[in-house]
Amino acid sequence: MKTIQSDKFGIENLKITSTPKPTPGPHEVLVKIEAASLNYLDLMVINGQYNPQLPLPHVPCSDGSGTVETTGSNVTRWKKGDRVTTHFIQQWISGSKTPELFLSRTGLEHPGVLREYISIPETALVRTPDILSAEEASTLPIAALTAWTGLFEYARLKPGQTLLTQGSGGVSIFALQLAKAAGARVIALSGSPAKLEKLRALGADEVINYRETPDWHVEARRLTDREGVDAILDVVGTDTLTKSIYAIKADGFIGLTGNLSGAVVPFNIYDTVPANATLRGISVGSVENFRALLKAVETVKLKPVIDSVFPMDRIQEAYRYMQQGTFFGKIVIKID
Amino acid sequence: MKTIQSDKFGIENLKITSTPKPTPGPHEVLVKIEAASLNYLDLMVINGQYNPQLPLPHVPCSDGSGTVETTGSNVTRWKKGDRVTTHFIQQWISGSKTPELFLSRTGLEHPGVLREYISIPETALVRTPDILSAEEASTLPIAALTAWTGLFEYARLKPGQTLLTQGSGGVSIFALQLAKAAGARVIALSGSPAKLEKLRALGADEVINYRETPDWHVEARRLTDREGVDAILDVVGTDTLTKSIYAIKADGFIGLTGNLSGAVVPFNIYDTVPANATLRGISVGSVENFRALLKAVETVKLKPVIDSVFPMDRIQEAYRYMQQGTFFGKIVIKID
Amino acid sequence: MKTIQSDKFGIENLKITSTPKPTPGPHEVLVKIEAASLNYLDLMVINGQYNPQLPLPHVPCSDGSGTVETTGSNVTRWKKGDRVTTHFIQQWISGSKTPELFLSRTGLEHPGVLREYISIPETALVRTPDILSAEEASTLPIAALTAWTGLFEYARLKPGQTLLTQGSGGVSIFALQLAKAAGARVIALSGSPAKLEKLRALGADEVINYRETPDWHVEARRLTDREGVDAILDVVGTDTLTKSIYAIKADGFIGLTGNLSGAVVPFNIYDTVPANATLRGISVGSVENFRALLKAVETVKLKPVIDSVFPMDRIQEAYRYMQQGTFFGKIVIKID
Amino acid sequence: MKTIQSDKFGIENLKITSTPKPTPGPHEVLVKIEAASLNYLDLMVINGQYNPQLPLPHVPCSDGSGTVETTGSNVTRWKKGDRVTTHFIQQWISGSKTPELFLSRTGLEHPGVLREYISIPETALVRTPDILSAEEASTLPIAALTAWTGLFEYARLKPGQTLLTQGSGGVSIFALQLAKAAGARVIALSGSPAKLEKLRALGADEVINYRETPDWHVEARRLTDREGVDAILDVVGTDTLTKSIYAIKADGFIGLTGNLSGAVVPFNIYDTVPANATLRGISVGSVENFRALLKAVETVKLKPVIDSVFPMDRIQEAYRYMQQGTFFGKIVIKID
Repeated sequence: MKTIQSDKFGIENLKITSTPKPTPGPHEVLVKIEAASLNYLDLMVINGQYNPQLPLPHVPCSDGSGTVETTGSNVTRWKKGDRVTTHFIQQWISGSKTPELFLSRTGLEHPGVLREYISIPETALVRTPDILSAEEASTLPIAALTAWTGLFEYARLKPGQTLLTQGSGGVSIFALQLAKAAGARVIALSGSPAKLEKLRALGADEVINYRETPDWHVEARRLTDREGVDAILDVVGTDTLTKSIYAIKADGFIGLTGNLSGAVVPFNIYDTVPANATLRGISVGSVENFRALLKAVETVKLKPVIDSVFPMDRIQEAYRYMQQGTFFGKIVIKID
Repeated sequence: MKTIQSDKFGIENLKITSTPKPTPGPHEVLVKIEAASLNYLDLMVINGQYNPQLPLPHVPCSDGSGTVETTGSNVTRWKKGDRVTTHFIQQWISGSKTPELFLSRTGLEHPGVLREYISIPETALVRTPDILSAEEASTLPIAALTAWTGLFEYARLKPGQTLLTQGSGGVSIFALQLAKAAGARVIALSGSPAKLEKLRALGADEVINYRETPDWHVEARRLTDREGVDAILDVVGTDTLTKSIYAIKADGFIGLTGNLSGAVVPFNIYDTVPANATLRGISVGSVENFRALLKAVETVKLKPVIDSVFPMDRIQEAYRYMQQGTFFGKIVIKID
Repeated sequence: MKTIQSDKFGIENLKITSTPKPTPGPHEVLVKIEAASLNYLDLMVINGQYNPQLPLPHVPCSDGSGTVETTGSNVTRWKKGDRVTTHFIQQWISGSKTPELFLSRTGLEHPGVLREYISIPETALVRTPDILSAEEASTLPIAALTAWTGLFEYARLKPGQTLLTQGSGGVSIFALQLAKAAGARVIALSGSPAKLEKLRALGADEVINYRETPDWHVEARRLTDREGVDAILDVVGTDTLTKSIYAIKADGFIGLTGNLSGAVVPFNIYDTVPANATLRGISVGSVENFRALLKAVETVKLKPVIDSVFPMDRIQEAYRYMQQGTFFGKIVIKID
Repeated sequence: MKTIQSDKFGIENLKITSTPKPTPGPHEVLVKIEAASLNYLDLMVINGQYNPQLPLPHVPCSDGSGTVETTGSNVTRWKKGDRVTTHFIQQWISGSKTPELFLSRTGLEHPGVLREYISIPETALVRTPDILSAEEASTLPIAALTAWTGLFEYARLKPGQTLLTQGSGGVSIFALQLAKAAGARVIALSGSPAKLEKLRALGADEVINYRETPDWHVEARRLTDREGVDAILDVVGTDTLTKSIYAIKADGFIGLTGNLSGAVVPFNIYDTVPANATLRGISVGSVENFRALLKAVETVKLKPVIDSVFPMDRIQEAYRYMQQGTFFGKIVIKID
């Protein structure tokens, strides 16, 4: 079968090779992958930045969607033909995530989804909603689930509360869509007038161009009667965290999901104290969280925003396009 | 000023009389009432059923909306001309409700709103949203706040979860509207095909005619892949509670708001045990809860469903119309 | 190996027979059982009351503790010699309990622990704390875990809050011990002066003899400055639930665990509404909950109260002794 | 009456002066202060570090306890002779703290307690527990309430969970005492062998000398089977926060209370993400929180640890002693 692998770090080393089709174990399912989607994580993995010790060759990419081909002897949940989507942290079924569960990630400790077939535990799959194509469903496992967990498992966002989103990456766009579907108010930040227009079209109640308004935290307070916003998913890091803290309401929630702008943030802990504000790391979510997200996707008929779809043989181009940062929504790889 | 009072229990004793305009104390506000809305509670009060010891004559009705006329010397939150709506449990500002706070209800321990002017503590008012008329805002203090507290403070309903509503009284319609605005799925129960149609027009995903389908709990399970529904606001009592318990999901929430069908419910506690289900009494909510509701009303542009508006001099007719139970939405009294 | 079975319902049909020693599957562990403990559930099972359709012959009893003898080929968590205790709902690992997980109970859907060896999934065992003997550990799986889940997962009891316990069965005594270890105040109810003395010796701050003080809910309110108690584990049912509701504080918690006095409780839902009180069914707990309980047991050095220990050949006597209801603490069966 | 004031910043400017006895307003209570206690905040205030714009002369100190002398005309909660303790954020009664409520602090926006009499709103007082002297009660308003709010309102610490405390200031000692009373396990950090011995005597299960073991986060993980600790109250800041993050368990809680070692902390947000850890600012608490704390104090008979008691005329000495940092427990000023 066709498999995209890299035997060295670097986008230029991503190549299509031929590997044997895997055989599912007794509790595993063989899935014919039809689509995969990229996350920033994938850039950090291929650049050797995320885990320089990663064993090579490596099959990258964590988010895939497809159809059940065969099932192991003990599998009870799935049958041939079921449309399924992969879960990122394979062993994190529900409850608290322990370090031991964590190290079971598709595309890291386990091989990724940029290949025609994957053999995966039956508990590490979710049912693809009927309203979504495989391309659309492939965008959910990391970006949408991170937004879901942050907003609805941790921040417990209520209708009428205000969320501030940063930029137009996958997590931020899903957060905007989910928050609007949940009756919340959204203030969206971006540095591009064209993207701000798109964010508004997706439902953002207010938009702020952070290049024109670098003190966006002041503007966010002004837009909320000086109370501050109830929740922020901070997807950036160094450049934003201090301002996020200034913009947050008493008892508000700041979810930390990544660090596009650099990991080490000098921040003044004084600022969180008067606000009783919460900062919380979010590491995607459990299968139980994913199932809850899918019920929401079905109920509100959420349509993932796809920027572009690349065929397998243009994989290097897809990664480079992500690296540029000009996309709006998810970048999908068609597997066939 | 014109005041509706009853010097004996009974709808036939509701009469317009002339009383002196009240003078606000230092922390009070004089409000020109423009509209009031009825709740079942008002029927129980006027019939002497709710509190046979209620001192008479009594000015009934708990839900009012109007405009600030004058303010007491120490008032800082309001000024003449502000559009305001009354809060039901006047001293319950935030946090837990104690028995001592409870006994401060507009239309019970304190005189009601069926009069041209009311003097009320400045902390027992909320700002009327710009998008609502006084008639519309007058429908919120009991019915909408009960639905809000049940769904978003206690049940913490998430997008994609399923709510089951019962009938078409004020609480149930607000619950349906708020749940849909919050991205939840709604199964609505009614005994009337015409009302079921209206419920569907308001957004109900599924409707069940409980006359045709008396085992509605079985149907509710069927509609939820046999898992059961996540939340129910049980507004009825004897006729419904056992079935509500059968219909609820593991870890689900049943809010108890009243007992239209009789107070004493023989129910089998066994049934809640395997489900880990929660039953919780809801007694409207605090001012902090009301403010949270109003933010949701503004964000989702919620329009209260008004069945009919009566002038003050047809007050007996309004009460009798409520008694019939054929209405759909709120019954409003115009005060002028 | 020796196995206690019944081929018909009725205590008189509990007999020691010889059965083959089970062979563990790849994910299973063979445990040499050393002690088992009885719960009311066991009486209801043997009487055919709990599930008249239970397949017979049946190996009863849900709570066991012993030592790992051998492990299946894929087992990673346990090794020979490990001291382990069985979990009741075998497949409920963490998160929400679904109906499908529920039907995996030791001593019901799966054979019980009144036998020398049991083969059980490796995930359905917990490590026995060093400070407990097998006899002591065998008392935990149902009674202590029910108390734990009710008090610390659902009621979230805090230091200084007041718990009311009913009687001196396993759940109530564990609730008393755990609540005192957690800095809470305990009001203990019993109908026997001798038992009240023992409850006080275990740490109860206040005791009420419900025979002398049938209006114990009034006394409970008096003892809490009329505020009411924060939490109650109602283990009785018909005779107590209405009074429990009268005794509970605003926003208080009543856990429902069983129905010693009969299942159908006519209760007035009005009474829960002004209190915003919560009633919640408790069905023991998950493995994750059990592990949290064991950390508490170790930290506070909790010693289970054992009333008596019976050898296997006096099993009928043990069941009849439980039926009398004169015991104080847990009844243990020594398996050897 | 005698009042300690400073007309310039600097400990050397703290002087006893004579000021008129205040007259309580209608909703106020005149309290004869008997004891006050110092917090680090008081050092930062007198040094002009906390608020360089603070109007002078200023009566410092936020924590006081005494006896009601007279009551304003509308006061209903208190009568002459009641033993009372002051609340820090006077207008924060319950629920969420808004910026507007925040600016009502005893010893900051309102004059402090280093004077014979204080006039204070009746709602900004709590009842002093019978088991505490005025000296003991004066230690509670900031330090004990901060520990309470962090551990039991936010972290919701359960029996058997592990708390790590830092040093031997007021917050850390109260956290240790409250956590032990709540059945938790405590790992206490200090740089002094003598203090570690005292912390152990107060109940610490494990102690770590951070001078001998600068990698105390590694040791904390070792002591918790590598899982990490459930909760940390980080009272230091720069020197500790990164290690606190390394030491915390998945889904664990780090409360931020101050910054003894400097405000700006460069910390790597990556580290919180895999742990789903929460960092939350704590700004003392509401009156409702204070009442909950007092119930715990009474139930577990908590005795505050007092390092030393100074008379009013040695106030400069008391402040300088606090500055040295060699104390263990609270520094109290006797007001007479």
